[in-house]
Amino acid sequence: MPLNKIDKLLEHDVSWLLDSGPDGDIAISSRIRLARNIQSLPFPIAATAGQLEQIQTAAELALKKSKVIGKEYLDIHMSDYSELDRQILLERRLISSEFVEKKEHTSLFVKQDESCAIMINEEDHIRIQALCPGLQLFKVWEQINKLDLELEKSLPYAYDSQLGYLTSCPTNVGTGMRASVMLHLPGLVLSERINAAIQGVSKLGLAVRGIFGEGTDNRGNLFQVSNQSTLGESETHIIDRLSTVITQLVMHEKNCRLSLLKNKKHFLLDHIGRSYGLLRHAYTLSSEEALNSLSDIRIGVDMGMFNSIDLHTVNKLFMTINPAHLQKFAQKELNSQERDIFRAAFVRKQLKNAKHSQGE
Amino acid sequence: MPLNKIDKLLEHDVSWLLDSGPDGDIAISSRIRLARNIQSLPFPIAATAGQLEQIQTAAELALKKSKVIGKEYLDIHMSDYSELDRQILLERRLISSEFVEKKEHTSLFVKQDESCAIMINEEDHIRIQALCPGLQLFKVWEQINKLDLELEKSLPYAYDSQLGYLTSCPTNVGTGMRASVMLHLPGLVLSERINAAIQGVSKLGLAVRGIFGEGTDNRGNLFQVSNQSTLGESETHIIDRLSTVITQLVMHEKNCRLSLLKNKKHFLLDHIGRSYGLLRHAYTLSSEEALNSLSDIRIGVDMGMFNSIDLHTVNKLFMTINPAHLQKFAQKELNSQERDIFRAAFVRKQLKNAKHSQGE
Repeated sequence: MPLNKIDKLLEHDVSWLLDSGPDGDIAISSRIRLARNIQSLPFPIAATAGQLEQIQTAAELALKKSKVIGKEYLDIHMSDYSELDRQILLERRLISSEFVEKKEHTSLFVKQDESCAIMINEEDHIRIQALCPGLQLFKVWEQINKLDLELEKSLPYAYDSQLGYLTSCPTNVGTGMRASVMLHLPGLVLSERINAAIQGVSKLGLAVRGIFGEGTDNRGNLFQVSNQSTLGESETHIIDRLSTVITQLVMHEKNCRLSLLKNKKHFLLDHIGRSYGLLRHAYTLSSEEALNSLSDIRIGVDMGMFNSIDLHTVNKLFMTINPAHLQKFAQKELNSQERDIFRAAFVRKQLKNAKHSQGE
Repeated sequence: MPLNKIDKLLEHDVSWLLDSGPDGDIAISSRIRLARNIQSLPFPIAATAGQLEQIQTAAELALKKSKVIGKEYLDIHMSDYSELDRQILLERRLISSEFVEKKEHTSLFVKQDESCAIMINEEDHIRIQALCPGLQLFKVWEQINKLDLELEKSLPYAYDSQLGYLTSCPTNVGTGMRASVMLHLPGLVLSERINAAIQGVSKLGLAVRGIFGEGTDNRGNLFQVSNQSTLGESETHIIDRLSTVITQLVMHEKNCRLSLLKNKKHFLLDHIGRSYGLLRHAYTLSSEEALNSLSDIRIGVDMGMFNSIDLHTVNKLFMTINPAHLQKFAQKELNSQERDIFRAAFVRKQLKNAKHSQGE
């Protein structure tokens, strides 16, 4: 079977997982997405098949013409791909869960290093996202803004001089921007301070969600913090406010870790050691158990407990232990029980050369 | 601090743990103890201090004169030793828990390889025990019978031509013999067939108990099966009957393991792998958790899952992870939490070179 475009993605390193950005021990990645629509065409939810096709064609043309979309981009017609392939894109955070189901007249443009992706005919005509490792929202903003301005040259965006960008859902009207940072907060969780922290962040008008967006829990102690409002503030002002809060959360997390290390060292070492033992030696492993144990390993790596395992290996596992990736590696469909067995073998192998440096 | 006699024991290998006897994968050890008393002297419970001293002197003299008690025996006056030292003897199965508390006019003769031990002034004047690895009660009987006959030459045993040997507790009158085999039965436990097996054995007039005698649970999936009655049957008949039942239990256990391996292979591998991971990487470990995990490792060893860990290492750990041994190794008193931390470090170190051969 020849490799399709999605298979190609699996062969490349993911830029935002590979490099550790600023505060990369706690902030895994920074992400911004912009919602854009083309003037005089109905939003996808209200569009006929013909209109959807018209939107798709116009958007694709504009993207292909654009100077910032080069050869390093793959253009993917979602209808050409299997359910499994579309799930792979979801697990790689390149598309939304709604987009997995929406096959007709939908396209994805994705940079091969996965730092940028554009969905056509999701909830809005165009959804652009850019990702960087660590906490560096302004860098992401620079990149995505450049792409957005370039696109605007060839696409007449639906824009209201008073409201700003018009979007399918009113919650996006204005900037059409959602900026978010994925944080790893095991220290706050283990210290039982996470709920207070989430409440504090919510009061500041920011949202805290699980790893795969709304409705998902905090598996792996991963949290996405993002702006809620898109009206009445400039993009840079929103990003500035978000960055300030996240910097505080990062400090809070660091303090919790130091305090655990100082006052509950054996509890912490034991917690991390047991998770390492589990990932290293279990023969069946659920997704949730794997994510939670990987979270513990990540603290161990941050704290220098492991001498030959790096954050990149752990970050990648957070993605690759998910069902679609496992089935892709196994090259066959696996039921839930088979996946748990395959997942355990996969993780054992990945961590095989990761020696446990402390206490041996 | 100079080594005392009990410290010397710690420096020797324990013969019944070292060699794997017949059916040694399931039967850890075979043990026989004989209860004997000296004519015309009251049982310890009814004896005055003067009489206890008289018993002690007479028994010690007879033992020292005996041809079978040679230089390889240590003679220990219990009152010369600390609580910790006496606990060590208990954990090594050389004395009973009652004997730990009973310091005055009590002695222990113990062979340095720990295959034989004689308590003076426990419940009876003299209690002799002999131990061999694996299932070989007749061999143990030969050894202990020889010693008993030798002692009888110089000590006038309390004996009734109708009843047999007279003992402090009526349940021992007759042969004064308790023969037992320590079995490792994780297969029966994991298959949830252990209760039926215990009930079956009980119906045959045999007793099933935990690792440290009456009232202890089945930690580490270890069970002692012994005769209940001492009247109306010859020693060899009792041993023969017990051996037959135990041979059946051993077969039952083997079948359960084969069935688990055939029908629930991943469950079994996972169970063993997780326990190995725990013992190898935890930083705090309770006694119960350690015993139960060691039990899993022992099945793994039996099944060839580990290529550089032997039964002797595991058998020894069953003994050395207990509180008194740990404190002896630490060379200081440890509270429960400190013991759990020390135990985890001790087990990690012991298993360090024990590579996990399968699935890596």
